[in-house]
Amino acid sequence: MRKIVVAVGFALCTLLLGHAADGQPLRAAATGDRAGTPTADQQFKITRVTPEYWRVTIDHPPFNIFGPDSIPQLSTVIAQIERDPQLKVVVFDSAVPGFFLTHYDFTAPLDLTIRMAPGPTGLPPLPDMLVRLSRAPVVSIVQIRGRASGVGSELALASDMRFASREKAVLSQFEVGAGFVPGGGPMARLPRLVGRGRALEILLSGNDIPADLAERYGYVNRAVPEAELDHFVDALARRISTFDKQSIAEIKTLVNNVSLPTDGELAAEWRGFLASVQRPAAQQRIKMLLDIGLQRDPTVETNLAKYTGEVSNQAGKQ
Amino acid sequence: MRKIVVAVGFALCTLLLGHAADGQPLRAAATGDRAGTPTADQQFKITRVTPEYWRVTIDHPPFNIFGPDSIPQLSTVIAQIERDPQLKVVVFDSAVPGFFLTHYDFTAPLDLTIRMAPGPTGLPPLPDMLVRLSRAPVVSIVQIRGRASGVGSELALASDMRFASREKAVLSQFEVGAGFVPGGGPMARLPRLVGRGRALEILLSGNDIPADLAERYGYVNRAVPEAELDHFVDALARRISTFDKQSIAEIKTLVNNVSLPTDGELAAEWRGFLASVQRPAAQQRIKMLLDIGLQRDPTVETNLAKYTGEVSNQAGKQ
Amino acid sequence: MRKIVVAVGFALCTLLLGHAADGQPLRAAATGDRAGTPTADQQFKITRVTPEYWRVTIDHPPFNIFGPDSIPQLSTVIAQIERDPQLKVVVFDSAVPGFFLTHYDFTAPLDLTIRMAPGPTGLPPLPDMLVRLSRAPVVSIVQIRGRASGVGSELALASDMRFASREKAVLSQFEVGAGFVPGGGPMARLPRLVGRGRALEILLSGNDIPADLAERYGYVNRAVPEAELDHFVDALARRISTFDKQSIAEIKTLVNNVSLPTDGELAAEWRGFLASVQRPAAQQRIKMLLDIGLQRDPTVETNLAKYTGEVSNQAGKQ
Repeated sequence: MRKIVVAVGFALCTLLLGHAADGQPLRAAATGDRAGTPTADQQFKITRVTPEYWRVTIDHPPFNIFGPDSIPQLSTVIAQIERDPQLKVVVFDSAVPGFFLTHYDFTAPLDLTIRMAPGPTGLPPLPDMLVRLSRAPVVSIVQIRGRASGVGSELALASDMRFASREKAVLSQFEVGAGFVPGGGPMARLPRLVGRGRALEILLSGNDIPADLAERYGYVNRAVPEAELDHFVDALARRISTFDKQSIAEIKTLVNNVSLPTDGELAAEWRGFLASVQRPAAQQRIKMLLDIGLQRDPTVETNLAKYTGEVSNQAGKQ
Repeated sequence: MRKIVVAVGFALCTLLLGHAADGQPLRAAATGDRAGTPTADQQFKITRVTPEYWRVTIDHPPFNIFGPDSIPQLSTVIAQIERDPQLKVVVFDSAVPGFFLTHYDFTAPLDLTIRMAPGPTGLPPLPDMLVRLSRAPVVSIVQIRGRASGVGSELALASDMRFASREKAVLSQFEVGAGFVPGGGPMARLPRLVGRGRALEILLSGNDIPADLAERYGYVNRAVPEAELDHFVDALARRISTFDKQSIAEIKTLVNNVSLPTDGELAAEWRGFLASVQRPAAQQRIKMLLDIGLQRDPTVETNLAKYTGEVSNQAGKQ
Repeated sequence: MRKIVVAVGFALCTLLLGHAADGQPLRAAATGDRAGTPTADQQFKITRVTPEYWRVTIDHPPFNIFGPDSIPQLSTVIAQIERDPQLKVVVFDSAVPGFFLTHYDFTAPLDLTIRMAPGPTGLPPLPDMLVRLSRAPVVSIVQIRGRASGVGSELALASDMRFASREKAVLSQFEVGAGFVPGGGPMARLPRLVGRGRALEILLSGNDIPADLAERYGYVNRAVPEAELDHFVDALARRISTFDKQSIAEIKTLVNNVSLPTDGELAAEWRGFLASVQRPAAQQRIKMLLDIGLQRDPTVETNLAKYTGEVSNQAGKQ
């Protein structure tokens, strides 16, 4: 039943987002990246600190943008996490100053995303990967330094724990400001984590949420002073890595049973994303954002809430 | 099924609360107010800041008490919010110093409330209106300055976001202190928002919750310094008013799907309210509260937790 | 159906935990305690402050360890709370400095626990008692001073409200650090109270959570300064004790309907505990903890997170 619903969602998407923006290839390597064969250009680098404790470092400068080319790479990482018999804890961090992981690549043809086959859960690739991370018998921790917007926030929300640099982390679901619906689970995950009111504020304001506010809201576990963050997360991960893997997995499963969204809820979000991102309201705003420097100008990327506000204000007047 | 259950709840209520208190009409205009024909004496005033952004100002001095006469007026406002094709965001605020919106009118005959026909959802009028506000394709924000007790807290909880003056806002569900069960949704909404423990504290202590504590508990999104509250809420509302209405509505629906109570849960609360408010424990306490100045003396209204404590203490000794 | 599942869980448990540790009876009175006939050696002392307000003081020095002998005693207390027609509010506190209520007795033969008949809910005794406390028509408040680890945290989570000494309270679910799965409800209760991320941190780090952090996480209602805690909790309990018992019970039931775990979720946790505690990973770590002074040396008891970390680190290397 779920697969049918998803298939219908796919069938609706015959328009291409890319058409509006195709004239603006931003980086020479971009087309090659998108081919989906992860080779030397790994955006997600695994470091095996010990057999029980890995780090996955997101390294896709200049902004850690997530695109269709990122999907098979992250999927491969998640599959390794799921299957490794010794692994107990994995920390996601970033090698790119200012950015943990940010929004979907608006210059890539949407077609590339739509045509990807569903993952093992039957969900489309992005929600599939995030669901698998939530259910893996391994503890996932995100260490957020810089911006975690859009997909970055969604990866954080699908992980088991979130620790943010008090001085350097910013989270957001900016999508409403660009005229579309987020697709990677935040409408299902945020209300369960922070309550309906704060979830609606995050999702409907599209505002940047700095680390301290994110902690007060429960969006992250804690905001940790920048100078202590590396040590804090590393010590926690090393501690967990000495525990019994079976007990970890069983505790996590019991928590998941009462706290994870259903796959149907996540499928509905993805359909909402695909339909909305192709509507004129989104196409107009995305074009305006790209025109003023999105994916090109650090000022736009680091002030996304401000610029989505400006283009929405202009869009309404046209 | 739901309608049958509600009808039974209605059938139980053949006694009138008002009889005990009928001898104390508090304001000359009160009976006229209750006639239910909103004319010049509008308790809820709509200001269309822009076609996309309205403010609804609660203006029913001296205490913004909510009575049977308020119900059709608020219902008309909610219907306009639901149907307006351009509206994207509505802010509820108060024109009465010291009071956002407070408790139900204890001097009005309960009969007036009981006889009202169910609303479009099939629920009795008050829960019906609040449910419709939660489901409307429009963002609702309450800006709380002064007391939001009883119905005021329930309107706040049914809205999408809550911002409170750090210095001047107080929330409460005082009802247990007056010997009855709240009826407008807080048992269903508070545990989902603040967790079972804090919900039970709010509901079973009947204490005043000042803005800072309300923020720590998640009862409001944020406590904002008084000097910044107007600007903060206005800027947020203006920002949202530039976004795409369809995306707003879809995001809100997806959040609602995982976070709203069922109508059955809300119907059960209303039945609990109607049955309990007619029992001797409530009738005794309400009479004592009216005798010492409730609905008449600002000292009693602004220290409601203290006076419910005092009358309960006396009631237990009689 | 539920009873069958529980019976299967019981049938799995033919090994005895106690065998590894049987050579270390810690206190002369311990074996007598375990006989299950509460006489002079009451671990839970009821003080009837008024007919409406009781205190239950946990008094089982030196560490307020909870064992098979504690079960019938606490069960008797819960039964009195359930049935008393006048009682409205009960406060749990401790007479033992440094400890509210801590972990299960690792020196008692597990067999004693396994053979106990299910309680009135059909659940095994510990989850049965906790469920009954959550559902009782009486307000339960825990006043936490000292450590609330394991069963202590589980009793706190099953109670209606939790207030912790800012300076002297520490909560934890340390079990993962000893190689097993908690059994008294925290996987079902914590995610609903503090969200999935903070629940997983508490449960999978096994770390001590001091009062201030517990408040920020929502693990307790509030951290109250040590000097104010007694008065704060007593005043709240006295206030509630003057309210109408039927209204209290109805409000609590309506909250319970939307916030309590199912009995099936709790049964699954108990099965997880019983199976895991008998596996080598747990037996090895528990033996190591007892060898270094658990249940004997205050240094080990008060630094449980540190010592579970140390033995897990060693266990992994053997």
